[in-house]
Amino acid sequence: MVGIGPGNRLDRTRRAEQAIEDSQVVAGYHLYLEHIVDLTAGKELIASGMMQETERCRAALQRATEGAVVALVSSGDPGVYGMAGLALEMADAEGFDVAIEIVPGISAANSAAARLGAPLMLDYACISLSDLLVPWESIRTRLEALAAADLVVALYNPRSKKRIRQLEEAVAIMRRHRGDGTSVGIVTAIGESDEQITLTTLERLLEAEVGMRSTVIIGNSSSLCLNGRLITPRGYRL
Amino acid sequence: MVGIGPGNRLDRTRRAEQAIEDSQVVAGYHLYLEHIVDLTAGKELIASGMMQETERCRAALQRATEGAVVALVSSGDPGVYGMAGLALEMADAEGFDVAIEIVPGISAANSAAARLGAPLMLDYACISLSDLLVPWESIRTRLEALAAADLVVALYNPRSKKRIRQLEEAVAIMRRHRGDGTSVGIVTAIGESDEQITLTTLERLLEAEVGMRSTVIIGNSSSLCLNGRLITPRGYRL
Repeated sequence: MVGIGPGNRLDRTRRAEQAIEDSQVVAGYHLYLEHIVDLTAGKELIASGMMQETERCRAALQRATEGAVVALVSSGDPGVYGMAGLALEMADAEGFDVAIEIVPGISAANSAAARLGAPLMLDYACISLSDLLVPWESIRTRLEALAAADLVVALYNPRSKKRIRQLEEAVAIMRRHRGDGTSVGIVTAIGESDEQITLTTLERLLEAEVGMRSTVIIGNSSSLCLNGRLITPRGYRL
Repeated sequence: MVGIGPGNRLDRTRRAEQAIEDSQVVAGYHLYLEHIVDLTAGKELIASGMMQETERCRAALQRATEGAVVALVSSGDPGVYGMAGLALEMADAEGFDVAIEIVPGISAANSAAARLGAPLMLDYACISLSDLLVPWESIRTRLEALAAADLVVALYNPRSKKRIRQLEEAVAIMRRHRGDGTSVGIVTAIGESDEQITLTTLERLLEAEVGMRSTVIIGNSSSLCLNGRLITPRGYRL
């Protein structure tokens, strides 16, 4: 289970590259495979669409059971909204007797934070607004708790073409606890030629372009914008 | 501001290595500099002790103002309890007119999670138990909110020789909201020859060895141990 980070080859770890190079089979969502085309020449590829996660995982485990060394790649970190857990669960539930190693990668919150400045310097939470696998009711409860406890919040899967209401509701929850001027950063298509970095406020967040390729970071009550950078002060006395 | 990950060179990104190689000056806590000794031959080094963070940062900014390319290294990710925010704030407050780039690294929560299995598959929070820069009262409020909202929690700086009470109190707070059998994972000295991985429960967490080099991950109500791995199921139907 190999994390390849945000997409640019410079953000991969050596361990990730080595794991892919050492594999005979490389499985992944077809767009992720494009990011590692420099590493996969001559290898058997298992490419599939975004919604076929369980099938892709099963095919990878099957090939491993047959004796192949298989790299199943995730963008970011396979351990954060990726496929590491699915592989471990599926291997147990379906009796695939294979050794599974997790190779961590730079997760979207960390790479987006670096592009924005330093918004995650203090306690923060990652929360996904996708209610495909988790009931919206429990996502809402979590947002409410995080908003009240003044944690910086990184939103994964903030909005898609069809899923719009969730971000609206998340912003409404945050605004009940934090000021309209609370600093917000948005990074879309990180590391790509069409990368977009937006600094805005909680009040104006819904006016910004946010999609499936965006990570949204909502500051806490002390976060601020300084020379175009989003920062959450850690409390050093200067 | 360069993140070198948990310490092993395999977990560095290419971007981090390139940034260090391109620098004339490398600044960092002396133990972190030992981790990158393969990259720093012939370079000017600014090594300092753990508690001298502001001085180290100021010295790095000063050398950069004088025209040097400087890499200020953090273990893990400089944007997560690291020094990225301090550098941006200090440059502004003290008038250092230098370009600052943040190079993200694999943070302790992500690297610990990979060693444990896949505990961060669902919404989670990072929280530091060090009350050096943050009042304990606000850390406690956050722990309470996270415990109630059933988020997986990664504890940074869980315990030191002198600071013991904070972990005891954190465990007490979690136990008011989660069952005694809640799965817990501890990784100490990750990637080092004395690395230690412990799977335990919330009830027995305080019996385990936990120190300054440990990251503690407390599962949510659905986290479980499976074949020696700590997993938080994401909700796929298998």
